[in-house]
Amino acid sequence: MNGAQALLQALVEEGVKLCIANPGTSEMHFVAGLDSVPEMRGVLGLFEGVVTGTADGYGRMTKTPAATLLHLGPGLGNGIANLHNARRANTPVVNIVGDHATYHKRYDAPLETDIQSLAAPVSGWYRCCEQPETLLRDVKEAVAAAVGPPGKVATLVVPADFSWTELPQTNPSQQQLFEHSRNQARTSPKPSVTETAEEIAKVLSCGEPSIVLLGGNALEEKGLLAASRIANATGAKLLCETFPARLERGCGLPSIERVAYLSELAVMQLEGAKHLVLAGAKAPVSFFAYPGKPSYLVPQGCSVHVLAEPDGNTVNGAGDVLRDLADLLGAEKIKSTTATGTKANEKPTGQLTPETLAGAIGALLPEGAIVSDESNTCGLFVPQYTKTSPRHSWLFLTGGAIGQGMPLATGAGLACPNRKVLSLEADGSAMYTLQALWTQAREGLDVTTVILDNGSYALLQLELSRVGVGTPGHKALEMLDLSRPDIDFVSLANGMGVEAARADTAEDFTARLEYGLNTPGPYLIQARLK
Amino acid sequence: MNGAQALLQALVEEGVKLCIANPGTSEMHFVAGLDSVPEMRGVLGLFEGVVTGTADGYGRMTKTPAATLLHLGPGLGNGIANLHNARRANTPVVNIVGDHATYHKRYDAPLETDIQSLAAPVSGWYRCCEQPETLLRDVKEAVAAAVGPPGKVATLVVPADFSWTELPQTNPSQQQLFEHSRNQARTSPKPSVTETAEEIAKVLSCGEPSIVLLGGNALEEKGLLAASRIANATGAKLLCETFPARLERGCGLPSIERVAYLSELAVMQLEGAKHLVLAGAKAPVSFFAYPGKPSYLVPQGCSVHVLAEPDGNTVNGAGDVLRDLADLLGAEKIKSTTATGTKANEKPTGQLTPETLAGAIGALLPEGAIVSDESNTCGLFVPQYTKTSPRHSWLFLTGGAIGQGMPLATGAGLACPNRKVLSLEADGSAMYTLQALWTQAREGLDVTTVILDNGSYALLQLELSRVGVGTPGHKALEMLDLSRPDIDFVSLANGMGVEAARADTAEDFTARLEYGLNTPGPYLIQARLK
Repeated sequence: MNGAQALLQALVEEGVKLCIANPGTSEMHFVAGLDSVPEMRGVLGLFEGVVTGTADGYGRMTKTPAATLLHLGPGLGNGIANLHNARRANTPVVNIVGDHATYHKRYDAPLETDIQSLAAPVSGWYRCCEQPETLLRDVKEAVAAAVGPPGKVATLVVPADFSWTELPQTNPSQQQLFEHSRNQARTSPKPSVTETAEEIAKVLSCGEPSIVLLGGNALEEKGLLAASRIANATGAKLLCETFPARLERGCGLPSIERVAYLSELAVMQLEGAKHLVLAGAKAPVSFFAYPGKPSYLVPQGCSVHVLAEPDGNTVNGAGDVLRDLADLLGAEKIKSTTATGTKANEKPTGQLTPETLAGAIGALLPEGAIVSDESNTCGLFVPQYTKTSPRHSWLFLTGGAIGQGMPLATGAGLACPNRKVLSLEADGSAMYTLQALWTQAREGLDVTTVILDNGSYALLQLELSRVGVGTPGHKALEMLDLSRPDIDFVSLANGMGVEAARADTAEDFTARLEYGLNTPGPYLIQARLK
Repeated sequence: MNGAQALLQALVEEGVKLCIANPGTSEMHFVAGLDSVPEMRGVLGLFEGVVTGTADGYGRMTKTPAATLLHLGPGLGNGIANLHNARRANTPVVNIVGDHATYHKRYDAPLETDIQSLAAPVSGWYRCCEQPETLLRDVKEAVAAAVGPPGKVATLVVPADFSWTELPQTNPSQQQLFEHSRNQARTSPKPSVTETAEEIAKVLSCGEPSIVLLGGNALEEKGLLAASRIANATGAKLLCETFPARLERGCGLPSIERVAYLSELAVMQLEGAKHLVLAGAKAPVSFFAYPGKPSYLVPQGCSVHVLAEPDGNTVNGAGDVLRDLADLLGAEKIKSTTATGTKANEKPTGQLTPETLAGAIGALLPEGAIVSDESNTCGLFVPQYTKTSPRHSWLFLTGGAIGQGMPLATGAGLACPNRKVLSLEADGSAMYTLQALWTQAREGLDVTTVILDNGSYALLQLELSRVGVGTPGHKALEMLDLSRPDIDFVSLANGMGVEAARADTAEDFTARLEYGLNTPGPYLIQARLK
């Protein structure tokens, strides 16, 4: 068994069953090894940003890491933006980067790069394998680190010569070493400045205006129901972070307002609070700085209390803590407020606008759907219209690095083949990692993509004024315009084997969406918005 | 004048007239500033890999840096692969990365990343602007560093608040400082272990088998003609580096054999040499390591002599040195051997194969063409068939990071609007930065793209056997297969506003190519190879 086969075998033993690859020469032994490890599924991405975003989507839905397979520094570079989003989501990812053979590095061959420097900013754990004998231990520690808590991007660099070296049979003492390291990593205490449930209970019972800000695992059923009981027992207001990794929503769950992306609005949401209790979320800050506007959004005179640290979506930490707190508050008899009504919203008619588009989605979103949301400005109305839709999961752009949505949807489709994935994509963002459609077609994934097409970087038109630019000139507006030439997403989808159609009216869009949601496999709708 | 406007103005004053942008919120003041600096042309790329590759192509053809405009760490991440290629090409690039406002960084907002760590591996010069007052000096030093020699990627990080700060009028003493720094940077001595022309002349005259290996500026007319005279005077063999940044070729120039990508062949090319003289090239090493094959390709017992260091394409260093050497050898009366014959090759017929495709290109390549070559395996025959074509420039994949070709062609088209650009793209590589087509359409660039479509990562099929994998299994072969689903590049090109056609026979391809080369503006041919 060579190093690559052993590594794949070790991944499977540790519960990693999916390897998303965009391999090169230095990874050929991994590719070849896939056939000797039947439990490992190999999925090909045509670009590394697709690979890393797919791993993120898969990890968010399964709470289990997928492995990536990237080709040296430049391949890692192409995957960085979506690893950044995964890091912000605390998603477990085992990020495997092939490197030149150890003895080849000193020749500074064309692809030679400083992989560690590239990997450091997005990796919660990093190791370059130093000898074939430690490869198995390294893999197991990488998986343990990825799993957390919190979930992490664990980057393991594997020199090509280790992957083609025949490994000795593992002896028991080595095995013990692996187990030891693994337990160590999994149980390592995390730094904490949290307050106890008792302390927080006192804060919330004092009668002053309070907000409980939810994030991470607090946004699953357990945490949401407990939080609602807490709010009903104490009068505290509930909010959730702006871009959660994953939010459970719809009928039977409390509907939680998110902290607004526009800091002007966020300030209004937080205004007047004397206490801010953080349950799996960080204290809110503005996404960007704007001249004359605050960066730190906690109101003056508001004290911040940490009930649970952000933990990503690998354990139930924040949810458990919230339940304990609810019980402590004597709220066990107080009900949660949950969204009701499965009655379909009326189907919209007339012009296709951001609002009628949202109406159609609200009317049609099926039970168990997973929404990958990179709809940016034009998707503004969709959350409102889907509040009482059947139960569904919502995945957000955690790290703000666009090009996340379509790979994330691909990963969700691989993770949950029995759930419909709805991928909401702004036109500008769609052009970053469009190659994900090809993987969706190849794997027959059940993903309906909606391109919210307004022919521009509309978010940036808004941002232009927010940063204090008065009247932009012609050249400036050209830089935010996507309509010369118009992008034909139907052609682009067809080019990668995905059926697609264009919708120009609300009726048109509703019909296309109905078709997409009722037809298995990938489908794309170019929603031409007015 | 705010910082962004001042920066753009300073770039123009330093000779940087093109800004290729994929901006975000933190770069909005640059976007707005374009209108106040009429000499600066702004070109939009829909993905950062397009932006950086376009800057590389522009710099290779003009020897002048273009400026990029990237959005924080994740935007830089997306541009890393092509910055890596630019670094390997010694191309001058002023790589501007917008960052959060200085006072916003401590909040760890979603897009916060360690930009320096990401930039370091691809940047020959790096600076994060520390105060608005030094912004102009920083810009000028960045340009000076980029220009070199050798040409570099100079990364300048500009916090958002500096770009919106009003700058004081520059006073003379500051101006002097700029000039000083600039001259300092431009004239800084480079480390050198070169031998003198006299010493090398002795080596080449000693009668032992010698090879002169050319790279960088030695591959322009002056260096090529001088090298040929040297070879004819001394019997030395001429070779050039495997992936030069830019090679001048065709009728009237010596035709120089490249060191083969396959190290097995390279070893044969270099066999028996007792002296290897490097003129603008590095000593040859294998691209990757392969089990049981050498990494360092210089034969045992062969001594290496450095006539000129690699200097990129910003000055004429290596060319001048070669001319001096030729004169010293008394070779001024010895002619260069140059390729002759403008008689068109016969147009091919029958099946469309890598060889008939090469025949068609050889028959039709027009005078002054620029070839951007990312054709990988299927382009194997093209150099041979174009040896006696009219004079043209050839751009190679310097750093091995695929996804270079189409952005590079875009940059060449921007740099040389009066020359036809032929972009030779392998199908797998084309899927990395396909968005370049949209910029070609928007700017009306005169680029004919040929997709060499064999439905697979054929290079990796070859590599699989070269790294010692015997018979690959089904799952392994799946990872190298691009035919399920087939990619329809005609649809993809049309989707981005580029006219396109598919060719299935040699006659078909020849007709399409003739049309593309004779019609101004972008055009794409999907060459379906047998």
